[in-house]
Amino acid sequence: MKFCSDCGAAVSLTIPQGDNRPRYVCSSCNVIHYQNPRIVAGCLPVYGDKVLLCKRAIEPRYGYWTLPAGFMENGESCEEGAARETEEEACAEVTNLRLYTMFSLPHIDQVHLFYLADMPNEHYAPGSESLLTQLLLEEEIPWDELAFPTIGRTLRYFFADRKEGHFAMRSEALLRPVRAN
Amino acid sequence: MKFCSDCGAAVSLTIPQGDNRPRYVCSSCNVIHYQNPRIVAGCLPVYGDKVLLCKRAIEPRYGYWTLPAGFMENGESCEEGAARETEEEACAEVTNLRLYTMFSLPHIDQVHLFYLADMPNEHYAPGSESLLTQLLLEEEIPWDELAFPTIGRTLRYFFADRKEGHFAMRSEALLRPVRAN
Repeated sequence: MKFCSDCGAAVSLTIPQGDNRPRYVCSSCNVIHYQNPRIVAGCLPVYGDKVLLCKRAIEPRYGYWTLPAGFMENGESCEEGAARETEEEACAEVTNLRLYTMFSLPHIDQVHLFYLADMPNEHYAPGSESLLTQLLLEEEIPWDELAFPTIGRTLRYFFADRKEGHFAMRSEALLRPVRAN
Repeated sequence: MKFCSDCGAAVSLTIPQGDNRPRYVCSSCNVIHYQNPRIVAGCLPVYGDKVLLCKRAIEPRYGYWTLPAGFMENGESCEEGAARETEEEACAEVTNLRLYTMFSLPHIDQVHLFYLADMPNEHYAPGSESLLTQLLLEEEIPWDELAFPTIGRTLRYFFADRKEGHFAMRSEALLRPVRAN
């Protein structure tokens, strides 16, 4: 950030009075521009004994596999964001969304949320951001070609929990880049 | 938003190619300025059979009671944000944070997270944003003087769950302003 989005004057990085960390503050209108982590919301869509994955048609991680997910938009709930991304990336309908994993990624200022979700039918297809969408059995998961660490962790928790017959919600922090699978 | 924070030129609200909703786009450098919901993270600090509340010393809702909570900062995890806010607003240490309630508030572009947390000692005091901090029994909660709807809901869930002997994580959307208590 170099310029004030309210008035167009230059901003400087200073600690405002009463605050304890540097913020972008406008040199002219004095507005403080706070910056905060962004939420990525997605689904783990389940159909019978299979889960739905998407092969990415966009960077980053073009060609790698992901769960349908993306940045939450203003004006929607987390569940709505997760369902919208599933519709956009995999043209799939999801129901019965239950929060399943939440990852803080402080090194990239993101929080990732994944919802366990049912697919009421077997309809799915690649959206504009996917090369391919596919329902996969556990033994078919391309573990070495997953796009992001939070995808691999969510899938591993799911298959382990399914064996136990109980799905436990996880909230954890990934404090530095970790392996995608 | 009126000006580009990268180059200072005017922005206009248009739907970028390949997108499906209006964004602020720079007329000069063409950067797209996405806007996303912000996370408010906080704790429900428990000490024995009491919970810790703060009387707000700032607007909005000056003089009303809240759980310690505030906007999550870049570079921290959700749990770190919740613990930091508890330290800042109530000068209290918390341990064993478990995600307890998550509320989407799409009408104000916020997501509120509250963690159940233990207080390892009885030390607490008002921080600069609090007039008063107090450990309260269920029958002492000032239900008619709570600052925000997500505070009242979290407290009601907590006391109901405590009677049941089981704390169930809740994720829900509050689709429009509702009563604070």
